[in-house]
Amino acid sequence: MSDLTLYLAPGSCAMAVHIALTEANAGHRYHQLDLAAGEQRRPEYLAINPKGRVPALITEQGVLTETPALLLYVAQRFPAANLAPLDDPYLLARMQEVHCFLASTVHIAFAHGRRSSRWADDEQAIAAMRAKVPANMRDGFAQIEQYYLTGPWVLGERFSLADIYLFVVAGWLKSIDIALDEFPKLAEHHRRMLARPAVQQALAL
Amino acid sequence: MSDLTLYLAPGSCAMAVHIALTEANAGHRYHQLDLAAGEQRRPEYLAINPKGRVPALITEQGVLTETPALLLYVAQRFPAANLAPLDDPYLLARMQEVHCFLASTVHIAFAHGRRSSRWADDEQAIAAMRAKVPANMRDGFAQIEQYYLTGPWVLGERFSLADIYLFVVAGWLKSIDIALDEFPKLAEHHRRMLARPAVQQALAL
Repeated sequence: MSDLTLYLAPGSCAMAVHIALTEANAGHRYHQLDLAAGEQRRPEYLAINPKGRVPALITEQGVLTETPALLLYVAQRFPAANLAPLDDPYLLARMQEVHCFLASTVHIAFAHGRRSSRWADDEQAIAAMRAKVPANMRDGFAQIEQYYLTGPWVLGERFSLADIYLFVVAGWLKSIDIALDEFPKLAEHHRRMLARPAVQQALAL
Repeated sequence: MSDLTLYLAPGSCAMAVHIALTEANAGHRYHQLDLAAGEQRRPEYLAINPKGRVPALITEQGVLTETPALLLYVAQRFPAANLAPLDDPYLLARMQEVHCFLASTVHIAFAHGRRSSRWADDEQAIAAMRAKVPANMRDGFAQIEQYYLTGPWVLGERFSLADIYLFVVAGWLKSIDIALDEFPKLAEHHRRMLARPAVQQALAL
């Protein structure tokens, strides 16, 4: 058990941390923020995470943010859950590489849809960014399909946090009318993830 | 010693990995790519990193990419260099949080200058994105100044990889006419980094 509280929003990347904590049987609490209502920008939440984003994890030592950092924390905090190859520098870096690609390329590509006003102010620019989202998402998932999904799991035979994070980000494709079946290995991976009891439990919120 | 080869470009985020390997006395080789000439998109490099970006690190076990993943690899591969709090899950996650913020927020904000065509095709949109780069970079570094630079180093009294990565990204500010001195703690941190022999050695290329 633990004294951890996760701030999340359904459908967001924070769900990866929620699933990971559930897989680890961490006994964490969680609070849902309504992003559409702007709860992430209210003063009481900015006091927890000044960046005004989810996820944020309150630990016994302080607040942690950024999905790849939280996933690594879950792995180190709950080693018995065996969610990451902690003692293999190459494989651990490979897992982190996938996390960083999801965060800095794929998530960013997706954010140019609903969050495009972060990067430009005028309406025409925002429309131009939104128009390019499907092409960039297809590019990102083509990379994943070809180079990262090497086995039943991202790290081959071994289940890891990278599978959880990939599952959550792949779940965004349908919102931009891209069928998972465009990427056969990804679609199979998605079904395999949905069959995990912890995933079902975490998604039920 | 090691059998590592780093692909980098001067001034890019790959320099953080080069400095880290130099601090670790890794004895690595490196190859410089001329990004302006498009060397990162040539077939011989795409065979190493299909994403066509730097850094890429050839290890004895395979190729690794993505700066935060490579930094963690350097720390685990060369533990005697003491570049990361490997045995403290909270502090290590905190370091990774800073790396992820630099990669997914600050580097992405900067990339909307020279690399804006990644996210939109028309000229007006590209101009609108470029116009917002200084404001977004100031927001990012304001967060760093206020919340992340807590001591002489990012993790307080303890030097870590986060200092190296921050140093490299902060070095981009002058190219968009933002003075380091707008952020006094950052400017002081930059001078402290420049005084390190490994940093001087790595920058000399």
